[in-house]
Amino acid sequence: MTTLSTRLTDTLGLAHPIVSAPMAFAAGGALAAAVSRAGGLGLIGGGYGDPAWLDEQFAIAGGERVGVGFITWSLRKSPSLLTDVLKHRPAAVMLSFGDPRPFVDEIRAAGAVVICQCQNLEHVADALDVRAEVIVAQGAEAGGHGMLRGTLTFVPEVADIIAAQAPRTLLLAAGGIADGRGLAAALMLGADGVLVGTRLWASREALVAPRHHEAIVDADGDDTVRTRVADIARELRWPAHFTARIRRNAFTARWHGREEELERNVAAEGPRYRQAFAEGDPENTGVWFGEAAGLIGAIEPAGVIVERIASEASRRLEQHGGAAISR
Amino acid sequence: MTTLSTRLTDTLGLAHPIVSAPMAFAAGGALAAAVSRAGGLGLIGGGYGDPAWLDEQFAIAGGERVGVGFITWSLRKSPSLLTDVLKHRPAAVMLSFGDPRPFVDEIRAAGAVVICQCQNLEHVADALDVRAEVIVAQGAEAGGHGMLRGTLTFVPEVADIIAAQAPRTLLLAAGGIADGRGLAAALMLGADGVLVGTRLWASREALVAPRHHEAIVDADGDDTVRTRVADIARELRWPAHFTARIRRNAFTARWHGREEELERNVAAEGPRYRQAFAEGDPENTGVWFGEAAGLIGAIEPAGVIVERIASEASRRLEQHGGAAISR
Repeated sequence: MTTLSTRLTDTLGLAHPIVSAPMAFAAGGALAAAVSRAGGLGLIGGGYGDPAWLDEQFAIAGGERVGVGFITWSLRKSPSLLTDVLKHRPAAVMLSFGDPRPFVDEIRAAGAVVICQCQNLEHVADALDVRAEVIVAQGAEAGGHGMLRGTLTFVPEVADIIAAQAPRTLLLAAGGIADGRGLAAALMLGADGVLVGTRLWASREALVAPRHHEAIVDADGDDTVRTRVADIARELRWPAHFTARIRRNAFTARWHGREEELERNVAAEGPRYRQAFAEGDPENTGVWFGEAAGLIGAIEPAGVIVERIASEASRRLEQHGGAAISR
Repeated sequence: MTTLSTRLTDTLGLAHPIVSAPMAFAAGGALAAAVSRAGGLGLIGGGYGDPAWLDEQFAIAGGERVGVGFITWSLRKSPSLLTDVLKHRPAAVMLSFGDPRPFVDEIRAAGAVVICQCQNLEHVADALDVRAEVIVAQGAEAGGHGMLRGTLTFVPEVADIIAAQAPRTLLLAAGGIADGRGLAAALMLGADGVLVGTRLWASREALVAPRHHEAIVDADGDDTVRTRVADIARELRWPAHFTARIRRNAFTARWHGREEELERNVAAEGPRYRQAFAEGDPENTGVWFGEAAGLIGAIEPAGVIVERIASEASRRLEQHGGAAISR
């Protein structure tokens, strides 16, 4: 078997430079454990903070070495959640979408690696300020929450900042990486590895409704939209600069661009959204995947996906893609 | 010297798999000729169609083998422009932002290569329908006009479509590519080469005002916005799904998000925009660069830029970025 080693695999003791995104609701213990068993690092999605669900997911992970990720602005409303989760001895804690400062000391004291996910250069400055061991540079291609920078420019720009200011910091590329081509490209851009969301959302272990899984297999990469409507319907008070990329469907066709009207109708529309989500309806709720949908043709076991991404990337790097180099 | 050969360099007889974007107003004959002399293929920006200016730019190119690019919806209003330009025997004609069908026969009859730039999968279907020799998959990172797909997902998705439907078609990645890391990443994603805009806008040969050049050197990658306000101020009737990425400045701060108000005030604001552009004011007009601004630290000769992109890409590909591969 071909293997690919980077500063990330060396530092974290991984077989492959692949970390799974802690996708709220979808990334439970089964997915995280499968990714870790395959040689990556799996992260459980801390989401909006349900302690009983998190205990259950760590139990499902069954002692496999996994980490966890939180939505930082939400965690701030119930910081005891972090204390509870650290009792499970996660290998790493990823903080996204908010100021990491209130949490890093407690994470480090528990022996976990601090991963800060960043969507712009201000976030990168925050991550460097707390001396994050790992920075994730996430581009707009990503499914779920994010901002507007593209992965292809954001990753090398962050790599330059890291090289100048804190060269031991590890860098993961996120947003649109679904196969070995994406991993190989990320390494060329200066990343030490990748954070994979959408491709693993489309895995058997992800906690995703069957008709949502069918929707991603059918979708191409043009079939998503970055929007606030899912958060408005759920009455989740996300800071306005974060939007969520979801599938284009009847729900987004109805409300995207009519955000103020949705806010006025949230008493009726919120329950409709939540019920459709609970029922696995792919049309009248948020279906949480990114542009990488166009690169995904089947729902597969997470371990198969992780190993294929790594082996395809090795092969492409060995062959220089379609290029020949001569002197 | 290390050289990098791909299907693009083989087919078009280039030393480097690098084509310069035909940026309206900025990409004249001097820039195109410098890119071609350095071993890439330079394209003159046909823009909104000024025959005298185009004749002058071909004269400046001085017989160097260059191509030209048009804004297709605009060309449709004055198709004789294409006939006139083809008398200069361009090596290639790139069509962007509109239906290529009315123009491809005439381009081919003149012996030029047809390049179709695409921003979504519908455009790719059009390009395949006219049997374009080269497809450019342009992501949202790009400066100037474009749409919303990210380069990192769009390029491999188009590569898959080409492999399945028309495998001899060449593929260029565009949007955010400014250095050897970007070219190497593009090759990993399945491209045969790259189209470079912003990095060459920041070249000595580009027709760009000095204070606009100072602005890109100072800018980071967060300092741009994709917006319709420049086109509204200029009263250019771009189809609404195309937006333009420009520098965030006083002009965008004032009008982005207030498009309807700008339309109502265009009689006053249009001349202000045009005068500021003519004067090289970097604050009260559109300053046309993309997210790659964060990867650019100096205004340099175009030939130096092209050669460095190629040599850096070769080196990274040889070294697998920061990864070691073992069996």
